[in-house]
Amino acid sequence: MEKTLVFGHKNPDTDTICSALAYANLKAKLGVHAEAARLGEVNKETQFALDYFQVEAPVFIEAVPEDVKDVILVDHNEFQQSVSNIKDVRITEVIDHHRVSNFETKEPLYFRAEPVGCTATILNKLYKENGVAITKEIAGLLLSAIISDSLLLKSPTCTQEDIDAAHELAKIAGVDLDKYGLDMLQAGADLSDKSAQELITMDAKEFAMGNAKVEIAQVNTVDASKVYELQSELEEEMDKAINDKGLDLFLFVVTDILNNDSEVFARGTGKDKVEEAFGASLDSNNRALLKGVVSRKKQIVTALTDAFTK
Amino acid sequence: MEKTLVFGHKNPDTDTICSALAYANLKAKLGVHAEAARLGEVNKETQFALDYFQVEAPVFIEAVPEDVKDVILVDHNEFQQSVSNIKDVRITEVIDHHRVSNFETKEPLYFRAEPVGCTATILNKLYKENGVAITKEIAGLLLSAIISDSLLLKSPTCTQEDIDAAHELAKIAGVDLDKYGLDMLQAGADLSDKSAQELITMDAKEFAMGNAKVEIAQVNTVDASKVYELQSELEEEMDKAINDKGLDLFLFVVTDILNNDSEVFARGTGKDKVEEAFGASLDSNNRALLKGVVSRKKQIVTALTDAFTK
Ligand SMILES: [Mn+2]
Ligand SMILES: [Mn+2]
Repeated sequence: MEKTLVFGHKNPDTDTICSALAYANLKAKLGVHAEAARLGEVNKETQFALDYFQVEAPVFIEAVPEDVKDVILVDHNEFQQSVSNIKDVRITEVIDHHRVSNFETKEPLYFRAEPVGCTATILNKLYKENGVAITKEIAGLLLSAIISDSLLLKSPTCTQEDIDAAHELAKIAGVDLDKYGLDMLQAGADLSDKSAQELITMDAKEFAMGNAKVEIAQVNTVDASKVYELQSELEEEMDKAINDKGLDLFLFVVTDILNNDSEVFARGTGKDKVEEAFGASLDSNNRALLKGVVSRKKQIVTALTDAFTK
Repeated sequence: MEKTLVFGHKNPDTDTICSALAYANLKAKLGVHAEAARLGEVNKETQFALDYFQVEAPVFIEAVPEDVKDVILVDHNEFQQSVSNIKDVRITEVIDHHRVSNFETKEPLYFRAEPVGCTATILNKLYKENGVAITKEIAGLLLSAIISDSLLLKSPTCTQEDIDAAHELAKIAGVDLDKYGLDMLQAGADLSDKSAQELITMDAKEFAMGNAKVEIAQVNTVDASKVYELQSELEEEMDKAINDKGLDLFLFVVTDILNNDSEVFARGTGKDKVEEAFGASLDSNNRALLKGVVSRKKQIVTALTDAFTK
């Protein structure tokens, strides 16, 4: 049987890595020759989860290898967030919880997107729908994904389904949800060894908004002021990315996981759109504190898309 | 509660009408203020099903009314097949079994596409997943949709899931699957009162293939030669559509529901692509008999898209 690769988005986060592993596991149990892959480095938060549940990271790929024809996308659908040669392969399935955009297929496929906080919540359902029991390891991975995407069930993207799934999975995984969750988030919030270049790329996603090209990078921290000690280096790297990729806006989002706020830093000709989108003024450092804003998807992309398209 | 409209594609077929009615019924039972709508005339085949199960046709709309903000699409996702002001409303759900193309949203949504033969087969599942019992009338509608899309379970798009659903639903609906199915298909195959203009529009869909704009109209019949008595009028109407819409190809597909063949008629600068796609020669009337070809989606759109994009 030909191999099907299962992978999430570039600059993988915990949901992307864990959902790729879990869905490859489910597909394998259903008789498909499926293998998980990743499009980038495993971050510290995800590594904490993999270590805790003793699961190996998926294999790294730059592009889909020539001998693989079929792929399954998890946790994303927009082609610019996917593998470079996505248009040359057949997408047989998508499991996702994002908006649908810049995506198309030639043939019918299984496309399952739900407006929940995390891909893993949908996968938890798919295990049940297919009558496959979830092991302790897989439960741990799915739980970690939900904790990550929902900032320990506090993000506005978090739904009752995510909360129920998290509690269910914590039981199977044999961990205390709050204790494990905070430990995992804090492992990811340790940015002390990151260069400015790493900070603006480790969790960056590119979006088309009207005719504008917008890149939004996000990091979690317990102390935003520490991150902004690198203000001038960050500015330099962001301007470089703007030039290299022809961006209209680069927005760097530093999210405080204890206070659930974000301090954003905007560069590019489109930075007035940030003020417009959030009714906030950028200070002399081009930064603004957005109270209660933690979700790129639900609070930032939607508001910015409105500002760029109206 | 604000009203959510549920509708299928333009030039509605039996799956589009019956799935809109059935899904509006399910959503209503789940507490959503949902109402089915249609974007065009009810054809004879669909009317046979509605009459048989004594269900009223959905309300006709030209565009989504100003006071409606949320819509649910069934049996399609491509915007050019949808309501004219689709970009001005929020799509909260899609239930479909076609390729995904020319579709996007600003926000996450529930998007459920499966590579099965009929939208109604997915709806049969959704009733079960939501623990809602299917009434005799709804079973009749869903069954009619499956019979229509699968040409009585004979189309290559028909999967085991469609077959199982059809038998299950026939029991609830209290009909003999084969007898009811043939009666319904023959009601739709009566084209005796159709003008050439009606024949090329009653089940027509437009597709983007590479840079080409292609319109494919399909009719079912028990005698293709009868339809082609109107050859010259058909040619005139097709050329008019090509001019008006700037089409590269208009393909008229006459499907024989007894022999499961199609005699196609091609007009437009792209008609050599038809020969390329099917390895068939168009005769002096620009027609060709395609043995065993009955599915626009699985056999025609895919082959033509390949020919236009390679
Ligand atoms: Mn996610
Ligand atoms: Mn259909």
